[in-house]
Amino acid sequence: MAAEQPQKKTLLALRQPNQPDTLVSINADICFGSEKLVLIGGPCAVESLQQITESAMAAKEAGAVMLRGGAWKPRTSPYDFQGLKEEGLELLAQAREKTGLPVVTEVLDPRDVSKVADVADMLQIGSRSVQNFALLREVGKSDKPVLLKRGMMTTVDEWLSAAEYILAGGNKNVVLCERGIRTFDTTLRNTLDVGAVAVLKQKTHLPVIVDPSHAAGDFRYVAALARAAVAAGADGLLVETHCHPADALSDAGQSLTPEQFAELTAGCRAVASAVGRVL
Amino acid sequence: MAAEQPQKKTLLALRQPNQPDTLVSINADICFGSEKLVLIGGPCAVESLQQITESAMAAKEAGAVMLRGGAWKPRTSPYDFQGLKEEGLELLAQAREKTGLPVVTEVLDPRDVSKVADVADMLQIGSRSVQNFALLREVGKSDKPVLLKRGMMTTVDEWLSAAEYILAGGNKNVVLCERGIRTFDTTLRNTLDVGAVAVLKQKTHLPVIVDPSHAAGDFRYVAALARAAVAAGADGLLVETHCHPADALSDAGQSLTPEQFAELTAGCRAVASAVGRVL
Amino acid sequence: MAAEQPQKKTLLALRQPNQPDTLVSINADICFGSEKLVLIGGPCAVESLQQITESAMAAKEAGAVMLRGGAWKPRTSPYDFQGLKEEGLELLAQAREKTGLPVVTEVLDPRDVSKVADVADMLQIGSRSVQNFALLREVGKSDKPVLLKRGMMTTVDEWLSAAEYILAGGNKNVVLCERGIRTFDTTLRNTLDVGAVAVLKQKTHLPVIVDPSHAAGDFRYVAALARAAVAAGADGLLVETHCHPADALSDAGQSLTPEQFAELTAGCRAVASAVGRVL
Amino acid sequence: MAAEQPQKKTLLALRQPNQPDTLVSINADICFGSEKLVLIGGPCAVESLQQITESAMAAKEAGAVMLRGGAWKPRTSPYDFQGLKEEGLELLAQAREKTGLPVVTEVLDPRDVSKVADVADMLQIGSRSVQNFALLREVGKSDKPVLLKRGMMTTVDEWLSAAEYILAGGNKNVVLCERGIRTFDTTLRNTLDVGAVAVLKQKTHLPVIVDPSHAAGDFRYVAALARAAVAAGADGLLVETHCHPADALSDAGQSLTPEQFAELTAGCRAVASAVGRVL
Repeated sequence: MAAEQPQKKTLLALRQPNQPDTLVSINADICFGSEKLVLIGGPCAVESLQQITESAMAAKEAGAVMLRGGAWKPRTSPYDFQGLKEEGLELLAQAREKTGLPVVTEVLDPRDVSKVADVADMLQIGSRSVQNFALLREVGKSDKPVLLKRGMMTTVDEWLSAAEYILAGGNKNVVLCERGIRTFDTTLRNTLDVGAVAVLKQKTHLPVIVDPSHAAGDFRYVAALARAAVAAGADGLLVETHCHPADALSDAGQSLTPEQFAELTAGCRAVASAVGRVL
Repeated sequence: MAAEQPQKKTLLALRQPNQPDTLVSINADICFGSEKLVLIGGPCAVESLQQITESAMAAKEAGAVMLRGGAWKPRTSPYDFQGLKEEGLELLAQAREKTGLPVVTEVLDPRDVSKVADVADMLQIGSRSVQNFALLREVGKSDKPVLLKRGMMTTVDEWLSAAEYILAGGNKNVVLCERGIRTFDTTLRNTLDVGAVAVLKQKTHLPVIVDPSHAAGDFRYVAALARAAVAAGADGLLVETHCHPADALSDAGQSLTPEQFAELTAGCRAVASAVGRVL
Repeated sequence: MAAEQPQKKTLLALRQPNQPDTLVSINADICFGSEKLVLIGGPCAVESLQQITESAMAAKEAGAVMLRGGAWKPRTSPYDFQGLKEEGLELLAQAREKTGLPVVTEVLDPRDVSKVADVADMLQIGSRSVQNFALLREVGKSDKPVLLKRGMMTTVDEWLSAAEYILAGGNKNVVLCERGIRTFDTTLRNTLDVGAVAVLKQKTHLPVIVDPSHAAGDFRYVAALARAAVAAGADGLLVETHCHPADALSDAGQSLTPEQFAELTAGCRAVASAVGRVL
Repeated sequence: MAAEQPQKKTLLALRQPNQPDTLVSINADICFGSEKLVLIGGPCAVESLQQITESAMAAKEAGAVMLRGGAWKPRTSPYDFQGLKEEGLELLAQAREKTGLPVVTEVLDPRDVSKVADVADMLQIGSRSVQNFALLREVGKSDKPVLLKRGMMTTVDEWLSAAEYILAGGNKNVVLCERGIRTFDTTLRNTLDVGAVAVLKQKTHLPVIVDPSHAAGDFRYVAALARAAVAAGADGLLVETHCHPADALSDAGQSLTPEQFAELTAGCRAVASAVGRVL
């Protein structure tokens, strides 16, 4: 038959014996996988200049060193708000300008990768895209670091294979982000899998961070999950914050106010110190 | 804020009171949703002209009226066989020429939709792409019918919302395909959800077919699942067949030989007749 | 150390090469595992003499050859109706007297086994008790056949090991009953696992029946699931019926009226015939 | 109909507005729900006097204040070691004598409750028994505190309803124990649900502890899960330890050596302090 039969390879994502942690640097101050945890804050979606700038300033004040915010939003229904798209990118750039916070934002379509990479400091691959191989290949060709979220239904091994698509493409700067999996129990939106964090810290050399906001889906439990993540060895946190959660166009119920975010940061700082890390 | 707030709509995918079944026609003889079940056979991947042609002829003889075969293959690992791509499309066209069987094949990348639609008679959206909204929007603009597989961990409502992306784009010819979900039990590769078939036949006007091959992941159980699907009300079946399963480049364990496929067809024909359908 | 180390044994529940199906007989007419499917009908709980007698007569008329009805009910909350207990057993005996239908009823407590076995023709072990090993051992000593339901969370192998407790105790008359598993999708109450039926018909020599009522949790889908079960190879069906479902003290939403039950029977009879069985 | 219809009640297990934490005391020094976390260590099963005594002394040295050890073991297969039963109870009493550590041990059969309660300081209800209502009622009548483990596929609400059976019986001393749930991902034996801990600390006034050993099923990840549990607000830990894990008759792979257990304790002590608790 016509196709070449590729040989079985050892995955680049797997940690070889004695292989040290990979460090993924965003700038001189921010490095995933180092002693210092990386705290990312910001709203689910970019909604307006005022909203993203206020959010960014509040997040910075509460300890965040990077800004998150979606310009393209993957939504279950085609009739829900889909994001401000190019305009959202532009607003993120302005918020970065104002605050100095580097920006991570999601890219959904392989055709948008270079456009997003022109502005963003880090490209996010969302849960629903974890096995979107065309998209993974495209960000594998980018020179921007990639934040690869776990899918709601993805095993640890499938997730590492998804990372492998990016690494095999030549982009070595991949950070994994656990965000809760889908299980039979719907008490919270998802079930945060802290065991996956512990396993990955052994199995791969890539940094692993945690998104406690999507795991909880409820602002009251985000801080407890964040502390658990740090205790389990996470290299950072991705937290949804909003200056006026009640007005958010998406994920209102799980966004933290600046005060709640500051409280989360303080709590996680203590736990980080207990496990020999810094926040 | 800058974004328009779209109004809550009734989903086009939902059956309105007294709304009849939508019929999705491929040609004068093949119509999903009619009394006559649509039987699709063929290999997981197109591997060579001989393989696809032989498979197509054998499938036709066993009762298939459409040919399946992947030119682009979504694979967990970047090092596994990824399909013959454009060459695979070309071979599918030749197999159709030889057998008269219309062709359904998967498209993975929004940039490939028009290329695939130029050749295929029906576009398949695979399980991993069920919430690839960029891709759904693109096939929503195509004039080719779409076979939308359920994701491994997609609820019935999320699946219908995925269909809605295609319908909202103007393409009304969507066929749903249940293929097993991921659960705690790994006795078989997936758990075929016949209940979803029963529910969907009430909840939506769209045709619903079943892929018993991916659900079982084991050739010994494919026929029993196929019969169960027909008994539950499925409008058709998508079955993996291969003239030499042991040599298949993917999904070897679940492919049926022509003889096994003929046996499945005979069994399903009897059940179809028992539920007032024809195969 | 003090404990004996038992040797690894082949499970009695597993089918040995060429081992024929085990037949579990209730009386001269009813035999699980034979060509003729066993149809069991009746209410979730025994509520009164009138209710259980009416239900039994209606079930018999619709084709049932055995009567089900709970005297002890396992309920999630201690404040829900827990069954009529001994009085319920007595009413079941009277309903049997009136209709001639043998009775299957659940036993929950190892201390009640002999009491229940004195009246019942078959002992039911419910889903929540599938790994209640003290109870399994007790029914293993009984001479009454046992209907062993799968747990909501039990793998096929764990279920067979539960059956092994009964078989190892000396009671060879075990019938397995698939009743839906718990998964991420809550469209229906549980996900009926027809694949488990297909696998078990190969893996074990024990009869396998299906309870489509608990799987669906909704009367509208019970008949479709029942047909799917028969098509997949089930040896019988356990169906909840009630003369006045709206008044039922439990499981009102999934109980069939006598008319609906007669319709289910007719549909399943046709499918049974299509797969070479009789109902 | 004959049955009384009980009225809808507020569950005793739910925290009423401003209701303080329930404290479950074992002796003057050990109190679940207080500032001081309760650390329980010991082997899966009692195997011999030497094994349980050595384990108890090692556990005490590493910081444990209570001893765990199974005399009756729930095993998937009837041919696996089922525990030393009454002899095991006797050995536990001797180990307590030697070390001063109070004992928690599992009871499986309602007929054994008084026998076990005569010796044990705390009765454990295991995962498979969480909805064994006959057993729950029986321990509800005991005056010994109860450790109620979550089932592998029990929702938070079902678990609280199980606790309610005990509370309604008059036994107010119930401690909940999260031990991992069953999900699609089998990287570890179970998925530790730290979110459930966070939710329960709000939803109920009962103490909540965590068993990181059964969640992980692998000694390498037990300490990380234990730290995560403490960070999420757990009131204690139940850890499997064994002086010679390789020789253990059950759960060998997840048992910690005394050295590993001491390390776990040190790590958890730091995290406890970071969240305002003491260990």
